[in-house]
Amino acid sequence: MKLEDLIIQIKNKNSFLCVGLDTDIDKIPKFLLNEDDPIFYFNKSIIDHTNKYCVAYKINTAFYESHGVKGWESMKKTIDYINDNHPEIFTIADAKRGDIGNTSKMYAQSFFTEMNFDSLTINPYMGSDSVKPFLEFKNKTSILLGLTSNIGAEDIQLKTSNGDFIFMEMIKSSKLWGNHNNMMYVVGATKTDFINKIRSEIPDHFLLIPGIGAQGGDLNEVCKYALNDNVGIIVNSSRSIIYASTDYDFATAAANQAMILQAQMSAILSERK
Amino acid sequence: MKLEDLIIQIKNKNSFLCVGLDTDIDKIPKFLLNEDDPIFYFNKSIIDHTNKYCVAYKINTAFYESHGVKGWESMKKTIDYINDNHPEIFTIADAKRGDIGNTSKMYAQSFFTEMNFDSLTINPYMGSDSVKPFLEFKNKTSILLGLTSNIGAEDIQLKTSNGDFIFMEMIKSSKLWGNHNNMMYVVGATKTDFINKIRSEIPDHFLLIPGIGAQGGDLNEVCKYALNDNVGIIVNSSRSIIYASTDYDFATAAANQAMILQAQMSAILSERK
Repeated sequence: MKLEDLIIQIKNKNSFLCVGLDTDIDKIPKFLLNEDDPIFYFNKSIIDHTNKYCVAYKINTAFYESHGVKGWESMKKTIDYINDNHPEIFTIADAKRGDIGNTSKMYAQSFFTEMNFDSLTINPYMGSDSVKPFLEFKNKTSILLGLTSNIGAEDIQLKTSNGDFIFMEMIKSSKLWGNHNNMMYVVGATKTDFINKIRSEIPDHFLLIPGIGAQGGDLNEVCKYALNDNVGIIVNSSRSIIYASTDYDFATAAANQAMILQAQMSAILSERK
Repeated sequence: MKLEDLIIQIKNKNSFLCVGLDTDIDKIPKFLLNEDDPIFYFNKSIIDHTNKYCVAYKINTAFYESHGVKGWESMKKTIDYINDNHPEIFTIADAKRGDIGNTSKMYAQSFFTEMNFDSLTINPYMGSDSVKPFLEFKNKTSILLGLTSNIGAEDIQLKTSNGDFIFMEMIKSSKLWGNHNNMMYVVGATKTDFINKIRSEIPDHFLLIPGIGAQGGDLNEVCKYALNDNVGIIVNSSRSIIYASTDYDFATAAANQAMILQAQMSAILSERK
């Protein structure tokens, strides 16, 4: 999918919500454990009930890999289900891959070709030649870690070099590797102090912003600094949507949470018109 | 496996060789493509013929993931085959994972519990709380990226902060997260200028050194700076061993290359006695 199609979808739905499918077998309703593939069944129900409120689904690969081969099967069924039934929705493999060139190329083949995700999160620590192989795939988006929301961001990303933060140095360098049509950045919602700074450096790139909800980020604060003329952000919420209820109403409860966030987003977008 | 068992194996075999199973369907002998699972068949043959010369196998997960679910099946069969037939051999999932805490815990479960690797490579860019969940698994080793051998290392790792390189700042910080019994570092073989500096900072930690062979690193140069009293290094070679021949003799040709490297290692170890 081209990012211009994502922009059209955002405008049609008045939403820039991404639902994170961090599906944890220990947290889904217990009665689902009788299903053949509880994780896929759970995801399918969540997707069926939330798709009209969101523009993207983000699959956190770790939650699937924790079940080995069977987990990858659940992941494949989930991405296929989204692509088959909601091809307009932007899909994100939150896999944080990155390695030397010939290895990054293999990861790109995995997530862009074999699994057919629209986009993939990438850890840029190994630099230019670890990122560029991903950018060679047409109509696919590479989402680089810009600044993460966890405490450990201080250990490398928030160190200073040449008078600026390492994460800013990385953003400045990486602007030359791709462009705003094939690259996005992950920026933690709890880091609003920095969102303004990042937006000045990359006014046109999309930002993927996790951390609303369970991680404590505030939607209005984020939007104040992050929105651009094309909206330019996707805001992800995982746990506060998909685990809104762990009872028989889990899917409608998730839909309700997604609807509340979509309504907040719609109001924010209206105010800007 | 405890690292002390790895040390015993190194002394018994007079080898610190790791064979990298970067198994690429486009590079293995064509006649194997008739097999049910060519990648596993290839790996099994390589393992059968090289196990007496090496102390570790490193599985580069990207090469398996590029085939999706089927690739994860080949990976699972490979690690099971090693664990069942050569339990003394140290196994490395070269997966370069790392994410916020609850996600890193899932990756640890995947590679340490579900897949039963002895160790996993970790990208430390997200800092302390992204690494610590891996260190909680008993008798498992977390292998942090210390300094990688690719050109892109200049973009972040080789920037300076507080008068030292970012990769050195990371090594200094991470020393406090674990210890030399549960942590190792990846250090590229082409970076001999820096190996001495790293060894001074972490005299007791094992180093995993890729880049001998196809990537151009020199074994004697590496050993001059990297060896410690417990040997303290594992040197990986992938392509120059596993693709030594692409004909019917591929496995014996791989064994021959592994034997040559083991003999060089044995000579280096003898000289130090």
